Amino acid sequence: MRPDPRTNRRFGVGVVGLGRIGKVHARNLVETTRSARLVRVMDADESAARSCAEALGVPWSTCWDDLAADPSVEAVVIATPVASHARLIRRAAAAGKHVLCEKPLALDAGEAIDAIEAARDAGVVLQVGFQLRSDPDIADVRDKLVAGNLGAVRFLRASLRDMEPPSVRYLAGSGGLYLDGAVHTLDLARWIVGEIATVTAVDAVAPGSPAAAAGDVDSAVIAVRFADGAVGVLEHSRVAGYGFECRVEVVGSRAAVRVSNHRKTHVQWLTRGAVCVDHTANFLERFRDAYVRELESFALAASGEASIGPSGEDGLAAVVLARAAQRSAATGRTVRVTGRESASSRRVA
Amino acid sequence: MRPDPRTNRRFGVGVVGLGRIGKVHARNLVETTRSARLVRVMDADESAARSCAEALGVPWSTCWDDLAADPSVEAVVIATPVASHARLIRRAAAAGKHVLCEKPLALDAGEAIDAIEAARDAGVVLQVGFQLRSDPDIADVRDKLVAGNLGAVRFLRASLRDMEPPSVRYLAGSGGLYLDGAVHTLDLARWIVGEIATVTAVDAVAPGSPAAAAGDVDSAVIAVRFADGAVGVLEHSRVAGYGFECRVEVVGSRAAVRVSNHRKTHVQWLTRGAVCVDHTANFLERFRDAYVRELESFALAASGEASIGPSGEDGLAAVVLARAAQRSAATGRTVRVTGRESASSRRVA
Amino acid sequence: MRPDPRTNRRFGVGVVGLGRIGKVHARNLVETTRSARLVRVMDADESAARSCAEALGVPWSTCWDDLAADPSVEAVVIATPVASHARLIRRAAAAGKHVLCEKPLALDAGEAIDAIEAARDAGVVLQVGFQLRSDPDIADVRDKLVAGNLGAVRFLRASLRDMEPPSVRYLAGSGGLYLDGAVHTLDLARWIVGEIATVTAVDAVAPGSPAAAAGDVDSAVIAVRFADGAVGVLEHSRVAGYGFECRVEVVGSRAAVRVSNHRKTHVQWLTRGAVCVDHTANFLERFRDAYVRELESFALAASGEASIGPSGEDGLAAVVLARAAQRSAATGRTVRVTGRESASSRRVA
Amino acid sequence: MRPDPRTNRRFGVGVVGLGRIGKVHARNLVETTRSARLVRVMDADESAARSCAEALGVPWSTCWDDLAADPSVEAVVIATPVASHARLIRRAAAAGKHVLCEKPLALDAGEAIDAIEAARDAGVVLQVGFQLRSDPDIADVRDKLVAGNLGAVRFLRASLRDMEPPSVRYLAGSGGLYLDGAVHTLDLARWIVGEIATVTAVDAVAPGSPAAAAGDVDSAVIAVRFADGAVGVLEHSRVAGYGFECRVEVVGSRAAVRVSNHRKTHVQWLTRGAVCVDHTANFLERFRDAYVRELESFALAASGEASIGPSGEDGLAAVVLARAAQRSAATGRTVRVTGRESASSRRVA
Repeated sequence: MRPDPRTNRRFGVGVVGLGRIGKVHARNLVETTRSARLVRVMDADESAARSCAEALGVPWSTCWDDLAADPSVEAVVIATPVASHARLIRRAAAAGKHVLCEKPLALDAGEAIDAIEAARDAGVVLQVGFQLRSDPDIADVRDKLVAGNLGAVRFLRASLRDMEPPSVRYLAGSGGLYLDGAVHTLDLARWIVGEIATVTAVDAVAPGSPAAAAGDVDSAVIAVRFADGAVGVLEHSRVAGYGFECRVEVVGSRAAVRVSNHRKTHVQWLTRGAVCVDHTANFLERFRDAYVRELESFALAASGEASIGPSGEDGLAAVVLARAAQRSAATGRTVRVTGRESASSRRVA
Repeated sequence: MRPDPRTNRRFGVGVVGLGRIGKVHARNLVETTRSARLVRVMDADESAARSCAEALGVPWSTCWDDLAADPSVEAVVIATPVASHARLIRRAAAAGKHVLCEKPLALDAGEAIDAIEAARDAGVVLQVGFQLRSDPDIADVRDKLVAGNLGAVRFLRASLRDMEPPSVRYLAGSGGLYLDGAVHTLDLARWIVGEIATVTAVDAVAPGSPAAAAGDVDSAVIAVRFADGAVGVLEHSRVAGYGFECRVEVVGSRAAVRVSNHRKTHVQWLTRGAVCVDHTANFLERFRDAYVRELESFALAASGEASIGPSGEDGLAAVVLARAAQRSAATGRTVRVTGRESASSRRVA
Repeated sequence: MRPDPRTNRRFGVGVVGLGRIGKVHARNLVETTRSARLVRVMDADESAARSCAEALGVPWSTCWDDLAADPSVEAVVIATPVASHARLIRRAAAAGKHVLCEKPLALDAGEAIDAIEAARDAGVVLQVGFQLRSDPDIADVRDKLVAGNLGAVRFLRASLRDMEPPSVRYLAGSGGLYLDGAVHTLDLARWIVGEIATVTAVDAVAPGSPAAAAGDVDSAVIAVRFADGAVGVLEHSRVAGYGFECRVEVVGSRAAVRVSNHRKTHVQWLTRGAVCVDHTANFLERFRDAYVRELESFALAASGEASIGPSGEDGLAAVVLARAAQRSAATGRTVRVTGRESASSRRVA
Repeated sequence: MRPDPRTNRRFGVGVVGLGRIGKVHARNLVETTRSARLVRVMDADESAARSCAEALGVPWSTCWDDLAADPSVEAVVIATPVASHARLIRRAAAAGKHVLCEKPLALDAGEAIDAIEAARDAGVVLQVGFQLRSDPDIADVRDKLVAGNLGAVRFLRASLRDMEPPSVRYLAGSGGLYLDGAVHTLDLARWIVGEIATVTAVDAVAPGSPAAAAGDVDSAVIAVRFADGAVGVLEHSRVAGYGFECRVEVVGSRAAVRVSNHRKTHVQWLTRGAVCVDHTANFLERFRDAYVRELESFALAASGEASIGPSGEDGLAAVVLARAAQRSAATGRTVRVTGRESASSRRVA
C-alpha cells in the first residue's frame, strides 16, 4: 500500500532495536506500509545498524540523541530488549515522538506506569505491539462477537505454540514465557471478552530445554475467569514439535467461532493414504499481514485519524496479569487481580 | 456384526436402568453387537421396562432378583442413576455376573473401592463405561502416541461440549459436571498420557442455567500436571451454543495429533459467501460406533478373550480426580492427588 | 441392523458368483443386513463355493439347479462375470426369484432387454447394483437437489478413480472401462439430473497398463448434454496414483453441492510443514455402507415394502450410454442417444 | 513491494483501457508493485481517463499518440476490448514499448501472428495476461509436477466458474466464452502438462441468460488429449450460483495435487448443524496476488532480468485451441489441432 499519490503523506518512523522483529518492522516501513515510511534506524550495535540502514536506504546511528534530533522522525518503533522499553518510551515522549513499543511494555507494573504517564504528559501516542489484534482473522472473530452473532460468551480459548524455545540469551532478557508469550493471549482475552478477574496457572519445563537453563518454563496453561462470569483457557508452548500455531476460539450461547491452523497455500497433496496441506511455520509467516496492519493502525493513530490500538494501559494490564499468572503457578493458588496492581491500573486509567 | 455363524456364541447381557443411555445399550445388543446379545431388561419403572422389552423382544422385570435368577444373563450393563451403581455392582458380583457400569463408577472413592473389591472377590469382570476409549479416532490418537510417532508428549488437551445442560432432575442425581462430565476427560488423559499428579480447576455457571438451580456448574476448566511433567487442559461446557463436540489433541516433541468436529457426511454445501459441512449434533451421534465397540470389548473381556477395557480402578481414579478438581475450584488451590485417595487407590491396585 | 425381533422376518437370499464383490454381499447378508439374510451360495468353482459357505454357515452348490430348487432362496444376488448376467436373470425369473444383478446388466442392449422382459413377465423384481445410489452422501446430494435448494441445475460432474487397473483376466470379461466403470457415473448422472441426450468421449491408455494388454483404456472423459440443456462431465481413471476416489458435484443456479475425498477417521496428523488426514483406499472401504443399504433396499423392494431402486431399465440405459460413449471416443464424434437403442429402450419402458 | 531503495528503479508503465481489469492494473502499479510503476493512463473515454488519472496522480490522455510520445512510458498494459489488441500491440512495438496484453491476444490466429511478428521485429517483449500462471497456488502445482513428485501425468482437470455472465455489451466484444474464458484453462493445460493434440467440446446456454442474447454460451466442457497421451477436462461456467471458483487438479501415477476453493480468512463459524467457512467471491479477490505477480514478472522480463512469462506464441496457441474447441462444439466432432493454425503457429515459433 502506498500513500495517496496527490499528498504523498507518509508518517516518518524510526526503528530502534534491529533484532528479528525490529528488522521486520523496518522492512515493512520501506516496502509495504502506505501510511508510514522508514526514515531512520538505530541500534547500539554499529554493524547491525549500518547493514540494515544500507539495505533499506536510510540514515542510521548507534545512539538515541541522533535519532531524537532528526525532525523527520515523527514516531519511533521500540524493538529493543524489554529492560529498556520504559526508559526509551520516556525519552521518546520527552522528544515529542509517538511510540509503538514491542511487547511486553515493561517487566513490572511500576515501570509500565511511569512510561504511560510520560507519554500522556507529553501528549504522544503510546501503542503496544500486540499484533494479534491486527490479524484479520482474529479481528473477524471479534467483529462477529461484537455484532452479537455468538450470543452471550461462555468460553474463550487461545493457544500460542512454537517449535523451539529461543536461545538462553534471549530468554534471559525476555521476562520469561509469561511476560514474553502469555501477554499476547492475556491481551487477546481482554480485547475479545473483557476484563479478567482471576488467573490460575500451571506450567512445566521439558528436560534439557533452553528454558530450563534460563530458569524459565516452556509450557503454561492459564485458566481465567472473566469479570462477567465466563471462563477461558490460555495455553502456551515452546516445545510443540509440529510447528507454530496461534489459535483462538470463542464459544457463545448461540454459535462459536474458531481460528486455527493457517495455511500458506490452498494446495492439497494427495498420496496413498494421506491428503496433506501445508501450514505456516513461524510467527513471521503467520502474522505477515498483521505486522503491516499494526504499523498502519499506529500511523493513523499517531496522525490523529484513528483511535489508538492496544494502548499503554492495555500493555500494563497484560504485564499485571502475566505476573499474576506466574505467581499462581508458583504458589498453586488462584490469584485475584486486585489490590496494588489494580490500584495502579486505576491510577493511570 | 453378527457372531461366527457356526458357533453363534453371543454373550447374554441384561440391561439395568432404561434411561437414554440404557436404551442405547439395549438396542445395540439387539441390532448390532456380534459378541453379545440382549437377554433381559430391568427398570424400576414398570412402563419403561415393559415398553423397551416389547420393542426389543426380551423378558423384563422391575426388580433385581428376577434378573439375578435368570441364567441366560451372564453379564449386566448398569445404567441406573449413579447413587445405585456401587450397590448394584456388589449384587451383580454376588450373583456371579460380569458388569459394565456406566460412569461415574460412584459418587465417592469409598463406595467405588467397595464395588471394586466385591467384583474382584467374586472373580467377575468390572468395566466402566468410558466409551471415549472405544472411539476409533481417539484410539488412533493413542495408537500413534504408543507407536512413538509423536516423540515425547508435551501437552494434552481434551474438550467436551454440549449445547444444553440436562434437566435439573438429572443434574441433581448426576454428581455434577465434575463427576458426570469431567470423569471422561480425566480418564482419557490418564489413558493417553499417564497418571495425573495435580489438578487445578476453575468453573462457572451461566445465569439462568438449570445447573444453577441444581447447585452445579456448566463450565469447568481443569489444568492437569502429569506425573512425567507434561501439562494438559481439560475443558467442559454444557452451554456451547453450536452443538456437541468432543476434541482431543496431543502435542509431542516431533508431531501433534488432533481430533475435533465430527461430520455426519462428506457433503459440502456451497453458497454465495460460505462453504458449509454438517457436524454431529449430540453424543449419541458422535459416539455411535464407540458404544458398539464398548459392548464388544466388554463381551470379549467377560469371556476371557481380551483384556479388560477401563477397569474399576480406572473408574475409581476418575472419581478421585474429579473430586479433587471440584475441591480445587472451590478453594482456588492446586490439589495434589495424594494422601487418602491415593492410598485407597493403591490399596485396590 | 437386525430384523424386528418379534417377527424376525429376513428375506432369504442366495448369492451367485463368489468373486470379490459376491463375497462382500454374502458377508453383509450374514453380519449386517436387517431385512435380508444369506441362505445359500453358489459358484461354478467348487472350492470357492465350499470355503465361502463354510465361513458363513450356509449350504452351497456349484450349479444353478440346486439353488433354484431351494425354497428358502427367495431372491438372488448375481455377481458372476457379466457375460452370464442376462442368462442367469432369465433363469432366476423362471424360478420366480427376485434378482439383484451386479452392473453392468449386460454387454449389449439386446441381452439387457431380454433379461428385463423375462423379469417383468415373471413378476419378479430386477434391481441393478448401482450402489452409488445407496451411498448416504450421494443420496444427500440428490435430496438437496430434489428439495429445490440448488435452483436450476447447470452442471454435474462425477469422477471415479482408482489406483490400479484390475488384472488382464478380469478386464477381458468386464466389458471394458465404459461398461465396467462408466456405467456407474452414467447412471448417477441420469438419477440426479435426468435423461442424457448426447455423449462425447475421449479416452486414453497408459503405456504398459494391463488395460493395453486387454485392448481396453484406463482413462475416459465423457461430456454429456442432458435433455433439459444442462451439461456434465464424467471422468474415469484406473491409473490415479493416489488412490480411490468417487466424487460428485452438482452446480445449480443458487448453490452447489459436492462430495469428494472420504476420510476413514477424523484424525489430523500435524508435522513440520504438513497437516494430513487419511482417506479411503478402495471402493470397498468407500462404499461399505452403500453395499449394505443396497441390499436393504433390494429386500424391501422384493417384499413389496418399497419401490425398486435402480431398475432393469436403468441398467439398460447405462449400457446404451456406455456403448455410445465408447463409439464416440472411437469415432471422434458426439453421439446422440436415439435410434435403435432408444427404440429398444422405449419398447421395454 | 517497493524497489531497491538505493536505485529506486521502477519500470515506467502506461495502462491503456481503463475498464475493470485496466483499473486493477493501474492501481497495482501505484500501490503494490516493486519493479514497475504507473506513469500514464489512457482511455478513449475522457471521463474514464481523467477520473482514474486524478485518483492515482498520473497524466492521462484519450489518444495513443500522447502516450507513445511520453518517454517515461517504457511499457504498456493493453486492457482494451479484444478487437483492438493486435492493432495496439503493433503500435506499441512501433513506438519501442514493451507490451503486457490482456487475454485473448486476438480474435483470430492471423491477427495474433501479425502482432507477434511486430513485437519480435521491434525487439520488444510481448507477454499475455494469463494471470493463472502467476497464482502462487497454481505455480506450486506446476512446481510439484516439474519436481517429479507426481510421477507420470495421467489426467488434468481445470475449472473456471463464475456466478453471473457479464453484460450483453461486454459479451458482444469478448469473443465469447471460448476466447474470453477457455483461453485461461487451455493455456494452463499447456503450461502444466504440455501441448494439446485434440479438443472435443460440448456447450450450453441457460434459458434467459445474457449469453443467449449475445449469441454466446455460458457453459462449456472441453475434453483434451495431450500430445503425450494424457487426457484432461476443462470446464467453464458463468452460471454457477454459489460464486467464483478456479480449480486445478493434476493426477499422476504416484500422487495427485489439487487447488480448489479459496478462502478469504481462516475463520470457522460453527452453528447448530453446520460448520462454515468463507470463500473468495470473484476473480479479483481470487487473483489479487496473481495480478501483482504478473506485473512484476512482466517488468522483470521487460528489463531483461527474467525470461518472459506467457508469450505471444502462448497467446496464439490459446486462440487456436479456443477456436478449435468452439468448432468442435458446433460440429460434434473432435478437432485435431493441426493444419493451417498449426502451420501459422510454426511460422512464428
